Amino acid sequence: MSKPLIAVLLSGCGVYDGSEIHEAVLTLLNIDKEGGDYQCIAPDMQQHHVINHITGEEQKETRNVLVESARIARGNVKDIKEVSATDFAALAIPGGFGAAKNLTKWAFSGPDGEIHAEVKRLIVEFVRAGKPIIALCMGPTVIAKALEGTEYHAQLTVGNTQEKSPYDIAAISAGMEKAGAVATMTNVNDFTVDENLNIISSPCYMMEASIYEINFGISKAIKRLMRMV
Amino acid sequence: MSKPLIAVLLSGCGVYDGSEIHEAVLTLLNIDKEGGDYQCIAPDMQQHHVINHITGEEQKETRNVLVESARIARGNVKDIKEVSATDFAALAIPGGFGAAKNLTKWAFSGPDGEIHAEVKRLIVEFVRAGKPIIALCMGPTVIAKALEGTEYHAQLTVGNTQEKSPYDIAAISAGMEKAGAVATMTNVNDFTVDENLNIISSPCYMMEASIYEINFGISKAIKRLMRMV
Repeated sequence: MSKPLIAVLLSGCGVYDGSEIHEAVLTLLNIDKEGGDYQCIAPDMQQHHVINHITGEEQKETRNVLVESARIARGNVKDIKEVSATDFAALAIPGGFGAAKNLTKWAFSGPDGEIHAEVKRLIVEFVRAGKPIIALCMGPTVIAKALEGTEYHAQLTVGNTQEKSPYDIAAISAGMEKAGAVATMTNVNDFTVDENLNIISSPCYMMEASIYEINFGISKAIKRLMRMV
Repeated sequence: MSKPLIAVLLSGCGVYDGSEIHEAVLTLLNIDKEGGDYQCIAPDMQQHHVINHITGEEQKETRNVLVESARIARGNVKDIKEVSATDFAALAIPGGFGAAKNLTKWAFSGPDGEIHAEVKRLIVEFVRAGKPIIALCMGPTVIAKALEGTEYHAQLTVGNTQEKSPYDIAAISAGMEKAGAVATMTNVNDFTVDENLNIISSPCYMMEASIYEINFGISKAIKRLMRMV
């Protein structure tokens, strides 16, 4: 019997301008651990910008989201244009600012920021097909944007306002509601499930957490995902 | 009681020109899991080159090893020049071609390739102090080069010639012997220990393996490391 194939949607390589590397790698680890196969995918586009991860400043250069995502994928990454929901059992979206700078423009315009057309197309395909999606960290904002204006109002989380976070969880949650989603508060070591739409979300590094703590949340969430496929 | 602080020596961000990302992240995960703290370090130098991880071709641009390593470290990385073995309980060296292109020139000249002076200095400090070191994948070749010409002949592994590998394990092992090390054959899900010098090595992606398999080897090896500190 072949293993269920999970698409992992990347947005570059590095928390401040691409996919959050720890979340992406731990997503791959837990898919493999739970008996799945993965295929990394990403849009073939220029990154919004390149950030020096020491200083936080913009570097005067350009990088391509698909090419940089290949670093996390060890070379094996497909252009999102060339795939559809029928190719996969489920979809995983790790976080990082790449989700809010490349996949959408949430980092600059909040819920009014545009979403990449192919990203929207693929997410809507998964939801229409009833196939499960897991989104980590800022990943849920991509789902909120993808489903904006559709009949689907996904229950999503980007964390909670009780535990410590480097981000404004209340504002991002309000933004997701503005886009038509139902925002819920969830602890860093936990996840939320939209049982109707088969969408799982977990806060990860939206909260102040160590790598072991975020792996705890990811491993629980992916175990649940693999029961859905 | 404060946690033991482990230095994690990075060489960029991406298997073909820097640190192997999965190995680096899983090293951080398992240090945290076993009750340690980590501090990423890297040399402040230009990468040997930049490789497009989809095509394998060189890109016409330059990147800095310290700045790219910060992507894996989420910003918190120190210049190797500014640290010494007295700052840490142990040292970890993940693999990737960066170890053999930036930390040494093994990828181009085998065991005759030069080693970065600060990398040699730091490794020798750890060995002199009897503090434990763990090296993954190509990491052991960096140790072999660091100890070349000293009184230390470390027992090291980069894999075995029985299981499948994309690399020439016999040639690399022979190279380590030429540099003065004692090369041993080890399975991908295992590690070898030099009990005199407190050096642990595990093959990881030197062998054909999945991310769960390499995490199996890393987690076993780091559990052992933490018993040594």
